Parts: sequence; C-alpha cells; structure tokens
Amino acid sequence: MWGYPEPISRLIEHFMKLPGIGPKTAARLAFHVLGMPADEVAAFARALADVKTKLTECAVCCNITEASPCAICSDPARDTHTLCVVQDPKDVMAMERTHEYRGMYHVLHGAISPMDGVGPNDLRIRQLLQRIADSDIREVILATNPNVEGEATAMYIARLLKPFPVTVTRLAHGLPVGADLEYADEVTLAKALEGRRHV
Amino acid sequence: MWGYPEPISRLIEHFMKLPGIGPKTAARLAFHVLGMPADEVAAFARALADVKTKLTECAVCCNITEASPCAICSDPARDTHTLCVVQDPKDVMAMERTHEYRGMYHVLHGAISPMDGVGPNDLRIRQLLQRIADSDIREVILATNPNVEGEATAMYIARLLKPFPVTVTRLAHGLPVGADLEYADEVTLAKALEGRRHV
Repeated sequence: MWGYPEPISRLIEHFMKLPGIGPKTAARLAFHVLGMPADEVAAFARALADVKTKLTECAVCCNITEASPCAICSDPARDTHTLCVVQDPKDVMAMERTHEYRGMYHVLHGAISPMDGVGPNDLRIRQLLQRIADSDIREVILATNPNVEGEATAMYIARLLKPFPVTVTRLAHGLPVGADLEYADEVTLAKALEGRRHV
Repeated sequence: MWGYPEPISRLIEHFMKLPGIGPKTAARLAFHVLGMPADEVAAFARALADVKTKLTECAVCCNITEASPCAICSDPARDTHTLCVVQDPKDVMAMERTHEYRGMYHVLHGAISPMDGVGPNDLRIRQLLQRIADSDIREVILATNPNVEGEATAMYIARLLKPFPVTVTRLAHGLPVGADLEYADEVTLAKALEGRRHV
C-alpha cells in the first residue's frame, strides 16, 4: 500500500504532538504547508527554532522575555509594592489587557497538580519567596486559576507567606460581566452571593 | 501594555496562517512549543523545511514523492491500463486503503473552482492528456470529489477525453455503508435510487 512520502508523514507526526491536533487535522496542516510558498515555510521553521533559542526567563519575575530583566520588571513607572502571582505568561497578558493593574508580576509556570506530576518544586515558588524576602512588597495577589489546581497552589503559597509582613489576597469570585443568572453554575452563584457588596 | 516577546508572537502569527487555527489556538500551540524539549522543536522545524525541499512531483502521475517516478508509477505489479484521476495526494491514500484498486493514478492538485480562482490551467490536466495520448490506458476513472467543483472538473476532463479511445467512468453515488436511510440527504438518496442494482 502506498503511504505518504517520509517528509510529509514526519511533518504529520510533529503536528500530531501538538495539543488538540489529531491525525486528520495534522495531515491537513502538513499538506497546507506543502502548498505554501517556500520562503514562508522557511520563516515558519525559523520562528519555531527561535522560540526556544531567543527566549529566556526573566531573572526577577520568571516571565518569558528576550532580555532579562523583562520590560515590566525594568519599567520605573510600575508599582513595586504590589505583586500579582499568575500561573502562565498568558495570564500576564490577560491582566495587562484590563489596563487596571500597575504592579509587578510573578509567573509560576504552572499549578500544583499531583495528577500531572507537577509538585511545588516544579514551579517558581522558591524564587517568589526569595523575591518577597528581598524586596519591599506589601501585597501579594494570588491570581492563579479558579479551579482545583489553581486554588491548591494559592492555598499552598498563602501558607508559605504567613511569616512575611505582606497582605495576601485572591481575585474575587462572582458572575462574569454580561452573564445570565439563569445559566450560572451553582458554585459560582453561591460565591457571588457570598461576596455580595453594598450598592 | 505588555505584549508577548517578539519570538512568541511571531510563532503565533505563523500558526494563525494555518487553516482552522485562530488566535487562541495559535497562542496555545506556540506556548506548547515553548515548553517542548529543544531537540524536538528543532526536529519539528527541520520537518517543516524538509517538506518543501525534499518533496517533488512525480513526472508521471504528479503525486508528491521523494524520487520521480514515484513508487506506484515504478511498481511493475500494477495495472497500467487503468488510470484513476484524483484531486489530491490524500485521495490516493484513501483509494489505496481500499486495497481494491491496482491501477495507476493521476493527481490533479485541486479542482476547477472559479470562486477560488482555480482554472483548468492550474491543474495537472495538460499532463493527464499527454499521458493518455502516450500510453496504453483503456479506462480513466474520474475520482474527483462528489461536490460542485469535483463534478465540474470531472465533466470538463470527460469532454477533453472524448477524442481518445478510452472508457471514462465516475465513482458511484449512493448511501455510505453503515448509514441510516432516515438521515440520508435527499440528493444522495435520489442518486442511490437511480443507481439501484439487482440483488
């Protein structure tokens, strides 16, 4: 039986290693690449390699950056007394999009998840404690995800921060803006009720 | 506002050029690549580049291949009197999976689609006619897709093949095996009725 030539089946296999991409999609992507202009494919290949070689972790906040310390850590206009702890670089992006937060960040690169074999030592928690010990941080906002792993990580870090003279906070739970009460899950609705505020 | 470092946003842009991949998926894929072992990313980059540099079109059937003529065209066990015309290399794979077809192939690399700016000259139709003129082919099976573009392409080629001493056939329409009559669309059902056979 005829199979795909080796270069195309090799590319299909690489695409299949990406999350959410099965054999059919991988084949579609590989054939799409085959039909792309050669210089564009070369640029794509270069972009792939560059992401591993040109990026490093910021020595201060552990966010990904081309130069350490990163742009946020070296920005003199930011509030150095407030530290927002997030799981991923994507979460820094999400926080920045609010245009409401002017403090610093610390990126953990994950959350504690025994099921996935991720323990506290796999995260940038040691660096976080060192940083809080060395600097003038007054509030630590634990902005890990509002799910089991994120909550466990927040609780774990909160306990470690007990000896430090810092306020430790967590993002509020409640109804998403624009949501419909009818379709809110009961846990979210209970949290929204619990966190109700005077108008 | 903080944005992603240039290497990661560049990789996100490249992923976004692939079919069916939007900004969110592209970001997820790019960050997944960032977390992959360096040697695996390098192999992925190499696979991308290789697909453009190591593959060529078979001079006989226009299928993609590492060496021309391809494995099928140079296989002495195949029936050289029957030629199956398909749109894409993927269709060759689909036909081969049946284990029922032992003839040759011709890959058009698309179908006539004025909407997408694909005309007869963008397909390997000239090569097909030359091949039929030069060889001992007795039957041409037009196995283009059973949709508007595929039908139009089949009709176009069938007209061009009129002067040649070959039988021109088309794959049968009908109910897919395992399908439910209730859920068949009316066009397919009408075609299945029209093509009914003695049992």
